[in-house]
Amino acid sequence: MSAAASPCTAAPMLDILRTPLLTDLYELTMYDAYLEAGMVGPASFEFFVRKLPPCRNFLLACGLAQVVEFVLGARFGEAELAWLEGCGRFSPRTIARLARFRFTGDVDAVPEGTVVFAHEPILRVTAPLPEAQLLETRLVNLLHFQTLIASKAARMVLAAGEGKMLLDFGLRRAHGAEAGVLAARASYIAGFAGSATVPAEPLFGIPVYGTMAHSFVQAHEDEIQAFLHFARARPQSLVLLIDTYDTERAAQRVVELAPKLAAEGIPLRGVRIDSGDLAEHARKVRRILDEGGLREVRIFASGGIDEQLIARHVAEGVPIDGWGVGTSLTTSNDWASLDCAYKLVDYAGKPRRKRSEGKATLPARKQVFRRFDRSGRMVADTIALESERLAGEPLLVPVIRGGELVSPLPSLARIRERVQAQYRSLPEPLKGLEPAHDYPVDISQGLSRLVQSLDQAGDP
Amino acid sequence: MSAAASPCTAAPMLDILRTPLLTDLYELTMYDAYLEAGMVGPASFEFFVRKLPPCRNFLLACGLAQVVEFVLGARFGEAELAWLEGCGRFSPRTIARLARFRFTGDVDAVPEGTVVFAHEPILRVTAPLPEAQLLETRLVNLLHFQTLIASKAARMVLAAGEGKMLLDFGLRRAHGAEAGVLAARASYIAGFAGSATVPAEPLFGIPVYGTMAHSFVQAHEDEIQAFLHFARARPQSLVLLIDTYDTERAAQRVVELAPKLAAEGIPLRGVRIDSGDLAEHARKVRRILDEGGLREVRIFASGGIDEQLIARHVAEGVPIDGWGVGTSLTTSNDWASLDCAYKLVDYAGKPRRKRSEGKATLPARKQVFRRFDRSGRMVADTIALESERLAGEPLLVPVIRGGELVSPLPSLARIRERVQAQYRSLPEPLKGLEPAHDYPVDISQGLSRLVQSLDQAGDP
Repeated sequence: MSAAASPCTAAPMLDILRTPLLTDLYELTMYDAYLEAGMVGPASFEFFVRKLPPCRNFLLACGLAQVVEFVLGARFGEAELAWLEGCGRFSPRTIARLARFRFTGDVDAVPEGTVVFAHEPILRVTAPLPEAQLLETRLVNLLHFQTLIASKAARMVLAAGEGKMLLDFGLRRAHGAEAGVLAARASYIAGFAGSATVPAEPLFGIPVYGTMAHSFVQAHEDEIQAFLHFARARPQSLVLLIDTYDTERAAQRVVELAPKLAAEGIPLRGVRIDSGDLAEHARKVRRILDEGGLREVRIFASGGIDEQLIARHVAEGVPIDGWGVGTSLTTSNDWASLDCAYKLVDYAGKPRRKRSEGKATLPARKQVFRRFDRSGRMVADTIALESERLAGEPLLVPVIRGGELVSPLPSLARIRERVQAQYRSLPEPLKGLEPAHDYPVDISQGLSRLVQSLDQAGDP
Repeated sequence: MSAAASPCTAAPMLDILRTPLLTDLYELTMYDAYLEAGMVGPASFEFFVRKLPPCRNFLLACGLAQVVEFVLGARFGEAELAWLEGCGRFSPRTIARLARFRFTGDVDAVPEGTVVFAHEPILRVTAPLPEAQLLETRLVNLLHFQTLIASKAARMVLAAGEGKMLLDFGLRRAHGAEAGVLAARASYIAGFAGSATVPAEPLFGIPVYGTMAHSFVQAHEDEIQAFLHFARARPQSLVLLIDTYDTERAAQRVVELAPKLAAEGIPLRGVRIDSGDLAEHARKVRRILDEGGLREVRIFASGGIDEQLIARHVAEGVPIDGWGVGTSLTTSNDWASLDCAYKLVDYAGKPRRKRSEGKATLPARKQVFRRFDRSGRMVADTIALESERLAGEPLLVPVIRGGELVSPLPSLARIRERVQAQYRSLPEPLKGLEPAHDYPVDISQGLSRLVQSLDQAGDP
């Protein structure tokens, strides 16, 4: 909270998506102070979630690819140096050092699409202290958001079950541009079929989908004319929006229109309902379509969808073939953040621990070992010292060594496969929407002994 | 929900913060279909919020500057055209037209920092139909988020009252980079003193603040050494973080250290507490500091702060001089989205109305007239036809005409002044945290008659 120097606005444009200046000021302040104090020894920081939200039975780790891109690409270029020099807060020595900044350290992480629980390290950075510190804010910003969204999307995917289609419609109420684009990625990883967000395709190769809005219907003098215009302009994979005025009447109009469209060689693929009691409308519309000989035409629903509604539709056998999910997905509206942290666990060869009330952390570099039963079902995790060798699969793997990527990161297709395998290995109660927080996560003997010995030694 | 063409990932890098391709696919699909149908007449769309969240008594309109930047800067450049051509979804005619895209229309809007309520148009776009449609998604994305955050921040500012300091500490859990940066802007507009988010300074001239993190203390062998190192490296506006191990003991250490710092010419400005029962710690720390002769040293609190906690601290006279607010601010965690829309209200000279259940909209281009009592207090709003002239202040003003800015947008300083004046004019109950939803917003006679006549005419 130290007062700011007078704001300096003359700096050239920063690329906020890539700049290492997208950070809290104190990361730079500490960078400076570490150098001043000669504290440049190796440090390890771990990112983890302190507590699962009551409405999440597990988390799906997500966002590593963007973290790697950020960490390996972090540079102080012209715009950054202009600000550092102009703002009068930093010594020439610090600025000169930042001008040469490259990440030289190591990163270990749980692969994207892995189920994780509270206290389990999801990612570890080991690097000279100032370097590892400097990355904190953006690293948390990237890992937090995609893990939040993937974990929310996972609930929807599990609630929808097989044979249903989920699409991300949430860009408009996502919190800014990057949130919209990364929510498309995170939900696709979790098992969504695609997104309406255009850049998801050129940036990530995610299938994008889209039909028509109410304004298209409203702009026409009559609804049938609107349907015809749209069908002729966009004959491929035609889906008509039928709730602008009266949903069932529009469904009747669709039945009347279908032969005409067929004669023009335009197959009707589906209709979308976006308001009212979606279940009731879907049932009525299904009947109208079926009686009109349109059994193959699918019904899509959107507007206020979340995992609870999806589960209800599935349980009641509502004839909805797919859901477009918006705000509840891209804002994780029932729980819009995770209680996560990036904490120093080791410095200069000594394990470190924060003991702040309610925020105490586990010291030392750690590994998580996950055990499975014979059917491949997860049964228990143990958080251990990195140096321990326990039974089970170690979750953290080397990602970066000495500033270089160890091996290419998996494709989205591979990550999606991993997620499906993770779903299959989940204990049954964790797959449901009801709170189930009894998955066993233990602390190893080695780690327990270390905590005890640090506690006995008292605080520095 | 039409199926995607095969993803094409070869496109050059999109700048997602500026590209008009940051949109839902259906905006492009409709653009194409409007051209195909020859529907290029003038259209008006209005952005408004359908319903206030139960925990918001008013909204603070925010984000217009970014919308203007987007609307006037929207271009389909190399990266955009490469994707449009490569993806195989659009006709050469549509692509050629997009290549020449410039916004040629009008924008009217409520100035940033204005109090608004449900159904009141906050912004209107009037332009050829395909053009006005194309802007929808990003425009909503920008206006929604900043209005959401400014409205949340306003509650904190009003709860804190005079003489206290509020800072945005929320970048790490904001939903991505843009959310972090724009939350700094929106909260500053609402009355925060500044932000920890560095780019807020070079981009917007917002004061940025920062001290030290727990890791700085943890990396040292003892806490006093950490305080000393930090003080010497960053002697200006020194604030020490005192809750890494034992808050009160750290406060004692601060008292012991202060004479030494003073002898070195380093004034201690404050301490920060970030965990535990903040009120209890603040009281104890205040006593320790006062007894140690450090009456001038201020106490800052952070960690899990929201407006309810601020109000409690103020009500109980807790000796906290300022709060650093993180997640609750930048995610608007109690209500992470607004039920907002951008709806067609007029096309080709005819008012338009959507009647979907629970989502019906008010037709025609509108104006909001706000009346004040003699003391300058807001007493009632009327939503009217644009053509009506009623008593009161018209809230929407011309911003863009024929694709050109009417006059320069106000500075942040001016917007902040406007916000303070708005707070003074708020009816007392709306200033509190308790729900107060009885501020009168009426519909004018002219608008009522139009709605009736459209209803009688029936749906198209």
